[in-house]
Amino acid sequence: MRSVIIYSGGLDSTVLLYKLASENALAEAVSINYGQRHAKELEFAFQNCKKLGVKFNLIDLSSLNSVFGNSALTNQSIEVPDGEYARGNIALTVVPNRNMIMLSIAAARAMALGCGGVAYAAHSGDHALYPDCTPEFAGALAKAIALADERKIELLRPFINMGKADIVKLGAELGVDFSGTWSCYKGGKLHCGKCSTCRERRQAFIEAGVPDPTEYAS
Amino acid sequence: MRSVIIYSGGLDSTVLLYKLASENALAEAVSINYGQRHAKELEFAFQNCKKLGVKFNLIDLSSLNSVFGNSALTNQSIEVPDGEYARGNIALTVVPNRNMIMLSIAAARAMALGCGGVAYAAHSGDHALYPDCTPEFAGALAKAIALADERKIELLRPFINMGKADIVKLGAELGVDFSGTWSCYKGGKLHCGKCSTCRERRQAFIEAGVPDPTEYAS
Repeated sequence: MRSVIIYSGGLDSTVLLYKLASENALAEAVSINYGQRHAKELEFAFQNCKKLGVKFNLIDLSSLNSVFGNSALTNQSIEVPDGEYARGNIALTVVPNRNMIMLSIAAARAMALGCGGVAYAAHSGDHALYPDCTPEFAGALAKAIALADERKIELLRPFINMGKADIVKLGAELGVDFSGTWSCYKGGKLHCGKCSTCRERRQAFIEAGVPDPTEYAS
Repeated sequence: MRSVIIYSGGLDSTVLLYKLASENALAEAVSINYGQRHAKELEFAFQNCKKLGVKFNLIDLSSLNSVFGNSALTNQSIEVPDGEYARGNIALTVVPNRNMIMLSIAAARAMALGCGGVAYAAHSGDHALYPDCTPEFAGALAKAIALADERKIELLRPFINMGKADIVKLGAELGVDFSGTWSCYKGGKLHCGKCSTCRERRQAFIEAGVPDPTEYAS
């Protein structure tokens, strides 16, 4: 079965891109510009697709900015908070319903291409803080996607029971060049090393025992 | 509870707009340009919102054209078929996963605004031919939407057990000016009168016993 992947250019989805490409299970990578501050991740997405010979479909949905309201990820006047993800500062990094929007578009693409699946890189570390990363949400959405077309499209989330360190380990096995992936929400010249997603990234390499090629600003 | 409505400017969603506005239950109308051939419906949407004093949020997603592939509704090189909806010609008027995409965006907007619901005008006549208009699909998606945010957003579909003629009757009671609504998929100067959606529109007025102010080309 060939699938469409939601591909951000971040660490998790790049490992998934490599995994599916190595299994010859990829029809197309769909990357979405939703007005994210760190849109530079999309350049990394393009480069990885080029390297692997995967069709790269960049979709400009930056007009969704008028939908999302006050998320620091899409509103340049709100600062991205430093520190670990926690109830207090995570609200600012929530882009409302982002996963459903991206998955619904990728599912549409799978329907148009006649593919059997839609894949995304949700992992167990996402669960606790983002409601639209929980297995419950994904299960309900999988059901809706399966009912949305004459043909049954499957929602694939192979990392759902893995932690980020497991993903780093898998990526190392698959030969992922991690320096060609982008995580930092601030979208600066280097990874800031201080925002929650930089902390998670750093920690994952340490836990995995895999050398971290990322250059952090601090 | 106030809701965000998915509002196309068509007959069904205009009646829903009037209904929710009369109940003081509307926060905002979200209208989406997804590259539809009949984008002139959006002008009707704007006018009706203006008339009722409802906030109109037009979102330009015309770049989704690169997602949808061969639908006559978004691909200008494919002709919209005439005649009644049936298995043979309906495939051409399917925009893959359109409902899920639009509802996911409206749900995001409801989350950003702190609203309790998302409303759309699916009715019983849609069920048989479009998989993403069935109660089963809507039920699964409602569950996903309720799980996608800390606050539970409700998916409202008050017309789900009504036929199009019932909607026309309700619209007449609510004082809807039906000449200010657009149905025809061809998006010409007048309603063509021949495509499947024009036929349904015409038939609904006859069944409802409500005068049809629509000027049809044939």
